[in-house]
Amino acid sequence: MPKMVTRFQPLGRGTSTRTGASLLDLAREVDVSVESICGGTGKCGKCRVLAATGAKHLSPVNESENAALTAEEIGMGVRLACQARVVVEGDIVVDIPELSRRGHHRLLASGIEPEIELAPAVGKILLRIPPATLSDIRADDDRLLELLHSEAAVTANIAQGVHQLLPNAVRESSWEATVTLFRGEELIRIDPGDTTGSLLGVAVDIGTTKVVAYLVDLVTGGVVGTESQPNPQIPFGEDVMSRITYATRNRDGLMKLNEAVVGSVNSLIARCCAGAGKDPTDVLEVVIVGNTAMHHIFFGITPQHLAQAPYAPAVRTSLTVDPGHLGVDIYPFGKVSSLPNIAGFVGADAIAVLLSSGLYQDDEIGMMIDIGTNTEIIAGNRERLIACSCASGPAFEGAHIKHGMRAASGAIERVWIDVGTNDVHLRTVDDAPARGICGSGIVDALSEMFRSGILSDSGKMLPSDWSDRVREGVDGKREFVLASAAEAEAAVDLTITQNDVQEIQLAKAAIFTGVSTLMTKLGIACSDLKRVYAAGAFGTYVDATSAITIGMYPDIPPEHIRFVGNAAGSGARMALKSTKIRDLADRLSKRVEYIELAGEKDFQAEFAKAMFLPHRDADRFPSVMRQRPAEKR
Amino acid sequence: MPKMVTRFQPLGRGTSTRTGASLLDLAREVDVSVESICGGTGKCGKCRVLAATGAKHLSPVNESENAALTAEEIGMGVRLACQARVVVEGDIVVDIPELSRRGHHRLLASGIEPEIELAPAVGKILLRIPPATLSDIRADDDRLLELLHSEAAVTANIAQGVHQLLPNAVRESSWEATVTLFRGEELIRIDPGDTTGSLLGVAVDIGTTKVVAYLVDLVTGGVVGTESQPNPQIPFGEDVMSRITYATRNRDGLMKLNEAVVGSVNSLIARCCAGAGKDPTDVLEVVIVGNTAMHHIFFGITPQHLAQAPYAPAVRTSLTVDPGHLGVDIYPFGKVSSLPNIAGFVGADAIAVLLSSGLYQDDEIGMMIDIGTNTEIIAGNRERLIACSCASGPAFEGAHIKHGMRAASGAIERVWIDVGTNDVHLRTVDDAPARGICGSGIVDALSEMFRSGILSDSGKMLPSDWSDRVREGVDGKREFVLASAAEAEAAVDLTITQNDVQEIQLAKAAIFTGVSTLMTKLGIACSDLKRVYAAGAFGTYVDATSAITIGMYPDIPPEHIRFVGNAAGSGARMALKSTKIRDLADRLSKRVEYIELAGEKDFQAEFAKAMFLPHRDADRFPSVMRQRPAEKR
Repeated sequence: MPKMVTRFQPLGRGTSTRTGASLLDLAREVDVSVESICGGTGKCGKCRVLAATGAKHLSPVNESENAALTAEEIGMGVRLACQARVVVEGDIVVDIPELSRRGHHRLLASGIEPEIELAPAVGKILLRIPPATLSDIRADDDRLLELLHSEAAVTANIAQGVHQLLPNAVRESSWEATVTLFRGEELIRIDPGDTTGSLLGVAVDIGTTKVVAYLVDLVTGGVVGTESQPNPQIPFGEDVMSRITYATRNRDGLMKLNEAVVGSVNSLIARCCAGAGKDPTDVLEVVIVGNTAMHHIFFGITPQHLAQAPYAPAVRTSLTVDPGHLGVDIYPFGKVSSLPNIAGFVGADAIAVLLSSGLYQDDEIGMMIDIGTNTEIIAGNRERLIACSCASGPAFEGAHIKHGMRAASGAIERVWIDVGTNDVHLRTVDDAPARGICGSGIVDALSEMFRSGILSDSGKMLPSDWSDRVREGVDGKREFVLASAAEAEAAVDLTITQNDVQEIQLAKAAIFTGVSTLMTKLGIACSDLKRVYAAGAFGTYVDATSAITIGMYPDIPPEHIRFVGNAAGSGARMALKSTKIRDLADRLSKRVEYIELAGEKDFQAEFAKAMFLPHRDADRFPSVMRQRPAEKR
Repeated sequence: MPKMVTRFQPLGRGTSTRTGASLLDLAREVDVSVESICGGTGKCGKCRVLAATGAKHLSPVNESENAALTAEEIGMGVRLACQARVVVEGDIVVDIPELSRRGHHRLLASGIEPEIELAPAVGKILLRIPPATLSDIRADDDRLLELLHSEAAVTANIAQGVHQLLPNAVRESSWEATVTLFRGEELIRIDPGDTTGSLLGVAVDIGTTKVVAYLVDLVTGGVVGTESQPNPQIPFGEDVMSRITYATRNRDGLMKLNEAVVGSVNSLIARCCAGAGKDPTDVLEVVIVGNTAMHHIFFGITPQHLAQAPYAPAVRTSLTVDPGHLGVDIYPFGKVSSLPNIAGFVGADAIAVLLSSGLYQDDEIGMMIDIGTNTEIIAGNRERLIACSCASGPAFEGAHIKHGMRAASGAIERVWIDVGTNDVHLRTVDDAPARGICGSGIVDALSEMFRSGILSDSGKMLPSDWSDRVREGVDGKREFVLASAAEAEAAVDLTITQNDVQEIQLAKAAIFTGVSTLMTKLGIACSDLKRVYAAGAFGTYVDATSAITIGMYPDIPPEHIRFVGNAAGSGARMALKSTKIRDLADRLSKRVEYIELAGEKDFQAEFAKAMFLPHRDADRFPSVMRQRPAEKR
């Protein structure tokens, strides 16, 4: 009799079904990460899974599950993975919904890069050229272009510099040569013999903090190398604004920032190529995305005016330039292209996210939120798209937070408060001893503190009648002990201060003001919003329910939130792989209506209301209010 | 009573009419050069002029004139300037036909650059741009391009690099800026304020021996500076073939030749600009012409294959590249363009000559002959054009000729033998003491030696029954003393050797083989040929009658020969001034049928027959045969 197997979807990993084991135990055995923070006690309700097949082999729904799940969920076969145990050996298939996956698995499994038809800007054609003879004395360029026209119905011109390659390339391999065309009309390369097997491009996402490059085989569409590094502009300024200031105030400031990022792109391309056994001079095109300031600096364009009202970018349209113009070390007559920008603070990266999310083609209304120091939001559907940018600040990156840190090893990334026992449950990155709190952890902390009544709706820390974790901090204001030094095996108590709460309130208010302004412009309520695409690293790791609870995301059913991961990088790859996508990007960038929030007359009032937890107009967050202790509603 | 004036056309210079003076005397007084070599004795017949007004104030036609002129000419008012004297004071207007002008005046007065409508590739538009405000937050590029579209109906894209200028340029002068468009579609420059008054271009003719640059004000069409210098590639090889060899055989050979010519172009542009008080960074475009090898080397393209059958050029089509690509020091986002080539040895310079000659638009059939080491010939009319190239060698530049020299001061440029007196009349450049013989002089010498019976039709020097100038040279072969050391005030006797005769026979045979092949292809005889355009310096200075006499030019009435001077330079200027001309050049270069003489089956036989003076088939030169002493016919 063959072994019975329990398989977890969508990853597809399986293990032997073992009587007595919980689904959470089995998932962990095969390294399938399922959210769980209460220690498998059935209390946090995060480990919802669906027994798609073999439900009969599992223990019956217990009391904890009845408490954590709705009747509807139970009817659909939803279980808590920590509570559902194998009682009879048999084949089981378990679906792990996106919300129950831990961050990096969300990213892996999110399928953020839609399948697209390969139609790269660069293409190769192998030609057998009629040799020059006394009875056919055409010039090499005529000979080649006429053949391209008759054989491939291509009307091309030859790029500058390529004329220099022409006479030897056509003759070197007995008049057999491979030409590379850019957009089917510009002949940018000619190699002797058949080189049609090699067609390489690189997609680059220039983030304010990180630069990522993807080497793509444009014959197969596959990524054959990925490399990243911190943006080397960081020493010139942590955030976009400080870099703009640096570029503007310092002689050669722009040049230095430009050289730093171009150098970074070159080194990433070189590393990708070295890893894949390729030569950078065979990379034919680089497609770049980034926010508008990163875009401008990369192209050597002053970002100065982005920092001053009305924040007009110098360039919206997509660019295509020669590598030599920028000093990018690829095939010298290749191309460096960008996606278009939308506005001064909604850049090519937002267009890339829009592309990979698919929002632009949805029938129903959705919203893309890409949280960073600057948060870009695009709302709408195939009919209409509106965008805005919110100055959300660096709090989610741990800045201005007392024990804030980046999401590195030891950062508290999940917080859950067991109201029954007063216990605070934490999970850290890599399950390492806690060293600080990253963005997703602090959003969880605020959400849990609010849910458990430690925070008032104005964000004021209240003396708790159940927890001694609220105390007076050194600044005389209250603070919440997330983990004492003893608990955390740390040098100091890790706390959330009143000030930290306010920083997050400011950040989330900035974001929600954008969210609500766009909804107002579209004339819709939360209930009309059928999908939120959460982009970027923070958007991928933050708990959607917590984000709703503090009033950062609109109050929609959490399962309507889709994690699109580093969607900017995948949008860049899509653009690299298809000119149709690029043409679409050009159309979208024209079509998206940009709202300058600072120019909205209700902006200040909206922002002030959004400072509340979850919002001054609490009826905008009905699901949150249902969770609050009755006496606090 | 006002002074009576004698005026010479077409120069328009005038002087007081003076009784007793010959027209030749009066012409010389005002520096109007009229051909005359017999010393004003009425014998050489070169100083034909037309008394257009005031013929009655001149002496009656005398015996010399009756001998030199036909009855028809006399009937039309043609006079010999040395014989016609003022007998009565009065206003006189004298027309000097082209053939009677000395070379440099032909060049000045030839009107070789047709008037064309200014339509340069670069154009400027002054824009008043709506400023960016919170209620108009368009990007700078959108703002500019949309304005261009609405104000000037221009759909433009912005050239790479110009984006970098954009944000400051639009703001610097209160949103007033001047944009420069290339071909009405590429925005290559933006300046704050109004700079529409400055629109500069440079036309360059890269000759094998000389590089000439013309700085052109494209607002007025006027040439505001001309500079030339010897081609600095000369040390790498005197002629095209030796430079191709240098480029092919030496590592970095092409690079060195390229750097030499680019450096020369840069220095000429700088000199033109300095002279005109302009800045080279305001030069927006350079249009280059040159033979195919010079063209290829300038663009960094190997000329290697031009030297090997089937002599296919790498590039026929016209090029437009960035100055930075070639290292040309003008406005960095300007353009460097070329006219198209026709074939390996019929280059962009031939197209330029074709443009300025107007042959392409003639109804009647004509022929353009541009003599150099390589001679390009284009024959036809508006219906059909055929071209070929002849390896005529450097003999006309004085090379391989015993006393040959370039047409510098002291070079014998005119020779006339007075058969009556046995006197040899010479004229030297600058009327300086004779130092050697230049191309036009040696063609005259051969023609006169043949006309006077010293040379047989095979080019053999015959013992003369009238002249003791024929003697045995040091090589044991005969030679003709053109000027004894005493006559020439020279160190040695200046002679024409039998070998010199053969060199010229080879050269003229090469040219006439091209001429006759094209006539055969067109199915025409000399009598169908209504015009010959003589291009280039040599073509301007050589005596047309002499060139016909030795069988170099086809036997057509000399007045049908038009001197177009440095037509390559003027064609380049035309192209610089008008894109219509450039488009025409592109069409012409496709339309001209190129004949590779080496591939013609009758080539060797035709060449052998053309070695004779004037030709083995003497009936092809009836006018020449009529001049020969009866016993030699």
